[in-house]
Amino acid sequence: MAPIHVHPRILVQLKKTDGTAGDASPAGKGQGMIAEILSTGEEIRCGHVVDSNAAHIAGKLDRFGVQVTRHTSVGDGLEEIAGAIKEMGKRADMAVVTGGLGPTADDRTAEAAAAAAGVPCREDAEALAAVERFFTSRKRPMAPSNRKQASLPRGASPLTNPVGTAPGFRLKIGRCLFFFLPGVPREMKRMLDDGVLPAVSAIPGPNRNTASTRTIVTFGLTESDTGEQLAGFADRFPDLTLGLQVRFPEILVKIYGRSNHSEKLEKRMSEAGNWIGRRLGCRVVCPDGGTMFQAVGRLLGRRGETLALAESCTGGLMAHGLTQVPGSSDYFLFSGVVYANAAKTAVLGVPETVLAGQGAVHEATALAMADGARRVAGADWALSTTGIAGPGGGSREKPVGTVCIGLAGPEKTMVFRYHFPFEDREMNKRVFAFTALDKLRRHLLDNPVA
Amino acid sequence: MAPIHVHPRILVQLKKTDGTAGDASPAGKGQGMIAEILSTGEEIRCGHVVDSNAAHIAGKLDRFGVQVTRHTSVGDGLEEIAGAIKEMGKRADMAVVTGGLGPTADDRTAEAAAAAAGVPCREDAEALAAVERFFTSRKRPMAPSNRKQASLPRGASPLTNPVGTAPGFRLKIGRCLFFFLPGVPREMKRMLDDGVLPAVSAIPGPNRNTASTRTIVTFGLTESDTGEQLAGFADRFPDLTLGLQVRFPEILVKIYGRSNHSEKLEKRMSEAGNWIGRRLGCRVVCPDGGTMFQAVGRLLGRRGETLALAESCTGGLMAHGLTQVPGSSDYFLFSGVVYANAAKTAVLGVPETVLAGQGAVHEATALAMADGARRVAGADWALSTTGIAGPGGGSREKPVGTVCIGLAGPEKTMVFRYHFPFEDREMNKRVFAFTALDKLRRHLLDNPVA
Repeated sequence: MAPIHVHPRILVQLKKTDGTAGDASPAGKGQGMIAEILSTGEEIRCGHVVDSNAAHIAGKLDRFGVQVTRHTSVGDGLEEIAGAIKEMGKRADMAVVTGGLGPTADDRTAEAAAAAAGVPCREDAEALAAVERFFTSRKRPMAPSNRKQASLPRGASPLTNPVGTAPGFRLKIGRCLFFFLPGVPREMKRMLDDGVLPAVSAIPGPNRNTASTRTIVTFGLTESDTGEQLAGFADRFPDLTLGLQVRFPEILVKIYGRSNHSEKLEKRMSEAGNWIGRRLGCRVVCPDGGTMFQAVGRLLGRRGETLALAESCTGGLMAHGLTQVPGSSDYFLFSGVVYANAAKTAVLGVPETVLAGQGAVHEATALAMADGARRVAGADWALSTTGIAGPGGGSREKPVGTVCIGLAGPEKTMVFRYHFPFEDREMNKRVFAFTALDKLRRHLLDNPVA
Repeated sequence: MAPIHVHPRILVQLKKTDGTAGDASPAGKGQGMIAEILSTGEEIRCGHVVDSNAAHIAGKLDRFGVQVTRHTSVGDGLEEIAGAIKEMGKRADMAVVTGGLGPTADDRTAEAAAAAAGVPCREDAEALAAVERFFTSRKRPMAPSNRKQASLPRGASPLTNPVGTAPGFRLKIGRCLFFFLPGVPREMKRMLDDGVLPAVSAIPGPNRNTASTRTIVTFGLTESDTGEQLAGFADRFPDLTLGLQVRFPEILVKIYGRSNHSEKLEKRMSEAGNWIGRRLGCRVVCPDGGTMFQAVGRLLGRRGETLALAESCTGGLMAHGLTQVPGSSDYFLFSGVVYANAAKTAVLGVPETVLAGQGAVHEATALAMADGARRVAGADWALSTTGIAGPGGGSREKPVGTVCIGLAGPEKTMVFRYHFPFEDREMNKRVFAFTALDKLRRHLLDNPVA
């Protein structure tokens, strides 16, 4: 990583907060300040719990223009924690540490921080008063073990915890200002908002960078094809970063920007978004991070039109996705999840002769299903899916991954057949559902209301 | 961290795998081998994505008796990744790195590994053949950018990726054997199982402990009530650890064990599982980690009976969940996702007088919906849901969180009304769906077939 310059006022502010002098040699990439996160706890270390605290903290700091460059997780061991803190004290300007502030014997973060700072722990009067207040206000007796929570490294300033017993604290170690917070997500989030972010946002300076992210949701190209369509981005927007992420079967195109001039940054982000929009055309489902379900819902809502579904192989996934969106009852009327052939006939009027002659997975069946759903529900549009999601049920003619899709509208009914190369049931259900919804989305875009 | 002894055979094996000599000074806590995990990617670094890969890998390795001591996440930058790899090469015996193996310009992990190892990258014939095979088997043209994925550090051995284009690789750097895997969870999981764990499990040694985990899925009690029901576990099973985890609205009860005698351990795990089963009774949905959807499916399958659904407020979630289970077409016939009142009448025969008189969210409607679904589909059983998932649509009499559930069977139809205290649409959809399915599950358990 290339060394960079941090505006002196930030360092001054960082020094002021705990009154000690810091080493004035931060490193980064032109950001205002660089930060790290440390999560402690056996449950994270051994994989029983996913570390969602780190993502929450990184996201919040990023929006304040503070770039988190590294997350680390270690277990409950004193030496592991102290070792990680020492390393971070050499690399970062600020750090947030979570976990290990509870009352039990395996909570050793304060001790580890003291070891890393080379200072002893001592009972902090302010912290003890806060713990006692917590129990008094809840009319509960304070266990002797809770007294341990008021023992802080010398030089630390306590941070109030309004929703739990563990007071946090802040302490400069090496050149880095550390904020120590509990690991319980609810307490951590509250103290991050109340104690950490105000301290960070109070830091002024013209070099203070704003961070901005834009997520463009696309469907219809593979990740590598999307990347190739966007070749040339780096030359055209050297000040921005492009990232691709798979949210199967959607591909998210992300633009990351950072600047000390937020208006200019937003202008650049918009230019980049438009450039990507021109490159990907109708593959752009949502320019603002939404889902295919939201995109289809918005289009229908704007047109004042309604939708019905007939789902065989997608098994209710389309209906479930559409009804996750608040307000979907304005345009979504009905889905007939017709797994059994008898239900295809009884509910949607698919002729038995078609099912017997052509089979359930066939264009003729998809067509009759879409027509039936549209008619039964009195909808403007209807989509149908019938196919083989697997893992069983495939044949040479109709292998796993085959799907027939029907799209019925006011003027005509169209049918399509696809084969996808997936063996996995869930992947097939998803790719079938998104392909069907995308058919409707693009048809609506191609046929605007007069 | 106290220095420990690693059985020499493990080191021999680690050396053998890539033919190079390693530094023979691993550290740990009495485990056979110590491991680290590195996750790369801007989306993790800046908090847009929670790093669930690390938890998955740590959990899997733990069950093989390999303790992960540290997880690290960094962004996409070449120097950040190379720096983290170099540090890990000094600390760990083995490491798993995920992300950055894709075809696009922001995928730089192979380059970073080469930089950390001090070797150049070159095109690997075996890796190139694997990428080409992937495209050939799917009858798709290979993009030029995919060729980049076959460029590996000198000395690396490719790891097959049966489900994607990014070949992984393994390479010794410092004293540590690194396994580099893609970041896409599905590909990473498959390659971890196929490529990494067999290499790890092949390593013998008397110090090697077996780890075992059992997950008992429960429904119907809060997390804290479940904990209270299980008070006394620690006294009775001091050699095992109990953990609770919320997979809303299910509560997972987890038993963790570790021993150098795998038969004894399995016996203890079974005793503990039975003890928990006696304490929680019919709240146990699956004693083996399965879902409510699987539990209901197994019961119906064993009885040779069929199910139909009528979903209003659950919007297809019950059908989607049931049809995620392979083989569900044996017992699942139909769901009428009747969001609009007209569909309730047209498809399920709910009398317009009931909808006009009592309203859509009412016991009378739930009853008519369940009866209608059972009749239309010719099913043995039917469940119906009608309620208010929110965030809008609530009233004083029927606030958000209200649901009416119907259960129709061969002998009678029952209806129930509940109110849940959630404001969130997704939480309500889930708790409504699970409550309805649990009604059927418990009814089937109480009424065994003769």
